[in-house]
Amino acid sequence: MDFTLADIAAALNAEVLGDGSLPITGAAEPGEAGPTDLAMAMDAKYAEALSDGQARAALLWDGADWQALGLEGAITLARGKAAMPAITRMMDAGPDLAPGIHPSAVIDPSAAIGDGAAIGPFVVIGPSVVIGARARLLPHSSVGRGSVIGDDLTLHAGARVTHECRIGHRFMGHPNSVVGGDGFSFTTTETKSAVEALREDVNEGGEVQGSDHWARVHSLGGVEIGDDVELGSCSTIDRGTIRATRIGRGTKIDNQVQIGHNVLLGEDCLVCGQAGVAGSARIGNRVVLAGRVAVSDNIFIGDDVIAGGGAGIMTNVPAGRAVLGTPAVKMDTQLKINREMRRLPRLADTIRELQKAVSKLGDSD
Amino acid sequence: MDFTLADIAAALNAEVLGDGSLPITGAAEPGEAGPTDLAMAMDAKYAEALSDGQARAALLWDGADWQALGLEGAITLARGKAAMPAITRMMDAGPDLAPGIHPSAVIDPSAAIGDGAAIGPFVVIGPSVVIGARARLLPHSSVGRGSVIGDDLTLHAGARVTHECRIGHRFMGHPNSVVGGDGFSFTTTETKSAVEALREDVNEGGEVQGSDHWARVHSLGGVEIGDDVELGSCSTIDRGTIRATRIGRGTKIDNQVQIGHNVLLGEDCLVCGQAGVAGSARIGNRVVLAGRVAVSDNIFIGDDVIAGGGAGIMTNVPAGRAVLGTPAVKMDTQLKINREMRRLPRLADTIRELQKAVSKLGDSD
Amino acid sequence: MDFTLADIAAALNAEVLGDGSLPITGAAEPGEAGPTDLAMAMDAKYAEALSDGQARAALLWDGADWQALGLEGAITLARGKAAMPAITRMMDAGPDLAPGIHPSAVIDPSAAIGDGAAIGPFVVIGPSVVIGARARLLPHSSVGRGSVIGDDLTLHAGARVTHECRIGHRFMGHPNSVVGGDGFSFTTTETKSAVEALREDVNEGGEVQGSDHWARVHSLGGVEIGDDVELGSCSTIDRGTIRATRIGRGTKIDNQVQIGHNVLLGEDCLVCGQAGVAGSARIGNRVVLAGRVAVSDNIFIGDDVIAGGGAGIMTNVPAGRAVLGTPAVKMDTQLKINREMRRLPRLADTIRELQKAVSKLGDSD
Repeated sequence: MDFTLADIAAALNAEVLGDGSLPITGAAEPGEAGPTDLAMAMDAKYAEALSDGQARAALLWDGADWQALGLEGAITLARGKAAMPAITRMMDAGPDLAPGIHPSAVIDPSAAIGDGAAIGPFVVIGPSVVIGARARLLPHSSVGRGSVIGDDLTLHAGARVTHECRIGHRFMGHPNSVVGGDGFSFTTTETKSAVEALREDVNEGGEVQGSDHWARVHSLGGVEIGDDVELGSCSTIDRGTIRATRIGRGTKIDNQVQIGHNVLLGEDCLVCGQAGVAGSARIGNRVVLAGRVAVSDNIFIGDDVIAGGGAGIMTNVPAGRAVLGTPAVKMDTQLKINREMRRLPRLADTIRELQKAVSKLGDSD
Repeated sequence: MDFTLADIAAALNAEVLGDGSLPITGAAEPGEAGPTDLAMAMDAKYAEALSDGQARAALLWDGADWQALGLEGAITLARGKAAMPAITRMMDAGPDLAPGIHPSAVIDPSAAIGDGAAIGPFVVIGPSVVIGARARLLPHSSVGRGSVIGDDLTLHAGARVTHECRIGHRFMGHPNSVVGGDGFSFTTTETKSAVEALREDVNEGGEVQGSDHWARVHSLGGVEIGDDVELGSCSTIDRGTIRATRIGRGTKIDNQVQIGHNVLLGEDCLVCGQAGVAGSARIGNRVVLAGRVAVSDNIFIGDDVIAGGGAGIMTNVPAGRAVLGTPAVKMDTQLKINREMRRLPRLADTIRELQKAVSKLGDSD
Repeated sequence: MDFTLADIAAALNAEVLGDGSLPITGAAEPGEAGPTDLAMAMDAKYAEALSDGQARAALLWDGADWQALGLEGAITLARGKAAMPAITRMMDAGPDLAPGIHPSAVIDPSAAIGDGAAIGPFVVIGPSVVIGARARLLPHSSVGRGSVIGDDLTLHAGARVTHECRIGHRFMGHPNSVVGGDGFSFTTTETKSAVEALREDVNEGGEVQGSDHWARVHSLGGVEIGDDVELGSCSTIDRGTIRATRIGRGTKIDNQVQIGHNVLLGEDCLVCGQAGVAGSARIGNRVVLAGRVAVSDNIFIGDDVIAGGGAGIMTNVPAGRAVLGTPAVKMDTQLKINREMRRLPRLADTIRELQKAVSKLGDSD
């Protein structure tokens, strides 16, 4: 994949400064760039690093003096971050996968695969599966009976879609991710479980409720996923109990994220690494759950909520709120709490001193 | 899988109200039910939704007036939750897997597989493995050398049982789960490690202890699992160092749960999503660890303990206690702490005001 | 693998006490040891358990009276922990894998595999891959196009190395682990995202920023890993955006750990189970992240830092510091905070009483 600087400018709808014919074979950090790399220096703080590298061409911040930086060509951008999708897409050779269907793949004769598919070694596609055009299934990925998936599917190595799921276009399942594992749903059949009792009365519970064992509730619902959704490596979305677990269009899910059974997750959400959403939680659109956020079961989170890293959301959150902490509260409140927490030992000493002082004042009274 | 309403009533030992001959092809939420679905409306709050759906038959709460709800047949239940295992089991077609052994499966000639097995494409079974009757091994699952597993095993796609494990009947390993990976055990051979030093004295530690590297302690123990255990998608149970890591009968483990080496986990426990149990912890019977609970290494948790979501258990917990928070304390104590935490900024202000007032009172004294 | 007690003593550079010719077929806990097991009793607290077992030979603590313990032979050790690597390595038969290349493995003709490789069923190795000598690739593992890996590689069942990664010698990837999945990097192209806005002003944010969707930033950088690194079951290391994500020599990573894109993780670190390091964080050498530790994106952690279990590190940490809590502070400070937290409800009561007392004093003034 070789380009010229002018090709890149064209892809970004930007102007070339200097020599547009410079050959570009890759992108690099400013200090590590070779002579045919495009140095990614979209902030003035990279000026010095640029001179450590050998770049002849660079992406620069708005207003940068490319000639003073010793470059032969450049593109300047008002908001460099916004150019990253187009540039990195151009330069991404993607995972390796030869066109066509590898002879070792096991595809049920009743499955329908669209045109232009690339299917790697040892892929397994079950009966009645329907997959759209241009699918890319990497080695050891699998799709179970009856699942229906749109165009431009990518399943990376070891990614799983189990049976009876519905997925839109451009789905990307990263390595060893799982769509449609069984929900974690168990109940006691004869008596209330200790957990049920504790939910009813926090002072009760913990009591053994007879000799009852956990009985499995099977997951009859599947998983329904809109267009343009990604699921990170080793992330899991469980199937629903009666109806499907649902993920809205445009939602991106990072690695090691767990989405429980019956969850409704909206559109254009970002769910960062190791976050978890417990069963039957309902989450609105454009919600951002930062890394390691936990959402309790059966609660409701409104549109446009942002939960900061590690937040443990235990109760409903209204639309538009930023939250933090465990249990999560408004972000600014939690920041104040954090500040006072760090002072808590001193605060406690102050209280003890006050107690003495007041007691003395009382005595002298 | 077609039933009549009477079939379902029979499975539940319940009485049919109305027309028992109504055909039932599936279960559905009340508002989404079609004319041959059994509407799952086991609580009065679903009454309204029922009229949105097209259900002719429903599971209803105790005392519900099925005729007033416009149904042609119904079953009423005192504790609807208790019926879910039987109903969902009836209606679950399960993962797809044709009977018999797929020709691509690689099964060592020294392995013994019980009658009635269904073994999917690309399954690998190592030497001296023993697996009971009616095993279902989905694509890309594997069982390593010398492992012995009971009847009615289900390993979903990509699930792993490594070498020399012992597992009871009816084990279910969900997609990409791992039983028997190596424990995480490293030590320094020449000097104490910084961690050892810190454990001895919290004020010491952090110091570099010479040029020593981490030396690997191999895991000679396997994993022993009782009957009726489930392990969720992408969950991992490490093998023990000298003796086996042990999971008791009837214990259910959700997705993305980590069980460290040498752990002893009791019977009939529930371990919810993203929980983690560090090495050598010992946990009693009927313990419930809610989502994201962490258990420190080498501690002891008694029978019937319930740990609320996100609890970080750092010290022993006596039997029967409900705990919450990090570090975890009694649940009611933590709820009080949480309440005061939210007030902490105001509390701190009050203290500062008191300081001024007391200082003023002292001055005027 | 049969040894004599003398063989083991030789491996440990230790002296045999008693009968060095005792046959040893395995290691066992003192109370479970059979007559040909080496009982692992490296602390005086195991003395009693020894008499419950049938051991004739044991590893004992320094100064132990082996004859009084009823043994026929023994080895005593000043720091038993330090002997564990050598002993367990001797006795570990390892995962099963026949020598040679299984006929089902799909190895691209352009790949170069060193001498002595053992490659299991259904392994997939892509074009231009280079793997050193004595590699062991277990079933269903895969290495993508252009990745270069050193000698003595072990990839366990289902472990993935994607395309264009560079890995040193003796790498061990545990079952279903993933090296080189795409980074989680999305941006909005037209306007600032709500998250960007919130980072600029915590009081802003949560606002919808037009109708913009998340645009994917592709990961052009790979992953670079030094010698002697381990990656636990279901752990994931994402590839970098422009340059590689880097893991230093000798670093050991436990199960279900997430290492985000662009992270720089130093040498000889220990990263325990379920820890997570967010994108672009930089971590020094000999750092220990205990179980479930979280490191925020773009921060810096100095050499020799130890983070206690569950710590949420949100800001830079200087070298040599031990930290705990969320947000993480110095460990001794957090221990004081924890102590006062448990007293917080009583503390709050005290403040309310003080308020009354002071108000009364003020009245009587």
